[in-house]
Amino acid sequence: MMKIGIVGLGLIGGSLGLDLTNQGYDVMGVSRQLKTCNLAIEKKIVKDASTDFKILGQTDLIFICTPIAQILPSIEKIIKYLSRETIITDVGSVKGEIVDHATQLWQNFVGSHPMAGTANQGIEAAESHLFDHTSCVITPLPQTSRDAMDKVTTIWRSLGCKVYKTTPEIHDQAVAWISHLPVMISANLINSCVNNDNEEVVKLAKKLASSGFRDTSRVGGGNAELGLMMAQYNREKILSCLKEYQENLTIIIDNIEQKKWPELETILTKTQEERPNFIL
Amino acid sequence: MMKIGIVGLGLIGGSLGLDLTNQGYDVMGVSRQLKTCNLAIEKKIVKDASTDFKILGQTDLIFICTPIAQILPSIEKIIKYLSRETIITDVGSVKGEIVDHATQLWQNFVGSHPMAGTANQGIEAAESHLFDHTSCVITPLPQTSRDAMDKVTTIWRSLGCKVYKTTPEIHDQAVAWISHLPVMISANLINSCVNNDNEEVVKLAKKLASSGFRDTSRVGGGNAELGLMMAQYNREKILSCLKEYQENLTIIIDNIEQKKWPELETILTKTQEERPNFIL
Repeated sequence: MMKIGIVGLGLIGGSLGLDLTNQGYDVMGVSRQLKTCNLAIEKKIVKDASTDFKILGQTDLIFICTPIAQILPSIEKIIKYLSRETIITDVGSVKGEIVDHATQLWQNFVGSHPMAGTANQGIEAAESHLFDHTSCVITPLPQTSRDAMDKVTTIWRSLGCKVYKTTPEIHDQAVAWISHLPVMISANLINSCVNNDNEEVVKLAKKLASSGFRDTSRVGGGNAELGLMMAQYNREKILSCLKEYQENLTIIIDNIEQKKWPELETILTKTQEERPNFIL
Repeated sequence: MMKIGIVGLGLIGGSLGLDLTNQGYDVMGVSRQLKTCNLAIEKKIVKDASTDFKILGQTDLIFICTPIAQILPSIEKIIKYLSRETIITDVGSVKGEIVDHATQLWQNFVGSHPMAGTANQGIEAAESHLFDHTSCVITPLPQTSRDAMDKVTTIWRSLGCKVYKTTPEIHDQAVAWISHLPVMISANLINSCVNNDNEEVVKLAKKLASSGFRDTSRVGGGNAELGLMMAQYNREKILSCLKEYQENLTIIIDNIEQKKWPELETILTKTQEERPNFIL
């Protein structure tokens, strides 16, 4: 049985640990906080955990589950403890900025992005079956070892994921559209509403806001740090989505301004027809 | 006990009928379709129903529950059957275009907008308690009779609504922000995603779209006819929201382009803090 390492014991790392421990793997965890390590052992999320990367020494496969900014620094710190056969993967939501550098640092690296999460954070939020019936993208490079790719694919499938394989470039474009762009346009909705200078309107708007506003504003009212990281690490792709979005919005504004009702109806009919293609 | 008329037996009219009939009122329904009238009688939504407005002759209070475009034509058709004391109200989501004209047609008119609904349409979707724990805005004019206003307020409260009173102008601005603008920016998200010319990206995006995209796209993938009517009947207010939205989006784009990360973080932190003020 493979021995598995997890660096970063938050929602994703903790949930991974729970499922993999339940599958019978020996799971070794690393966290910067001793308290988190102890909690992970106590909750049977890992077999053992430490603040010292040395604990990863005998592992066959390692998941880096830190925030994006810590992925490459974590790999730099752990590789001296690993045997050459150890496979490293990550769970970062941006791949272009990560996969090239990570592969240079460690030949046996395979980029992953499981599309799972909840509104909660931290090891306290870890839950089993978090990945069941979700999608996971892996983003191998031409030089990525076939064996490493297969092992990573197999383990995500064992967690219940449907695994898609694509390039870091295509992945980053797709998530910019369906995940990062929504955060920015949703945040801009909240920001625009509260910036309105008619106080009476803002006051009534806050009282009347119901399910439509609630849903459209949800991701824009989420974790600010996460939104900032998306923008920093997927900057070019988000920018190009935002600019296309803005151009298309200009068309909608123009249709309303010029009372081009058939044109507006065509757009709204198309979006009504197309949405089910995104929502399984 | 008052005798109540309902013109338009769809989701809203039908649900109103159910609750008012259950409260013991004699409810008379009008629909263009005989089939709908028969269904309304059969389901005990109304005491009696007809395709002929004459049935409203003895009513004390009438709810116009047609699509916005039919509100004024409906009032024109029914008033010859009414006694001068009969009060007319409506349920339209735009008030400026309606209330002035309706009041000219019928002195005893009070504009209402119950903020209730489901994803379904038609009399088949009618449900009891639809208005319980929702908001309802009434928009009297300076010349609106105090007695009519009080009666309309009382009946909405009896249905479980929290009633707010404001001008048609303030109402239309507030709903433009929290209801109509979200529809346009959400539709523009779907439209922008599918218009992307990289087929592989669109294909992967459709597979990966999860809860964030689902929520942000929901109202933009809704009834196209309704979205079009919002734009037509609340045109000026939507336009001004869209333009402010567009200006604010330019600031976000500029922050990302110029890597002004503290500025972007300030916006995202503010939206995270502000959202709970809209969501009770």
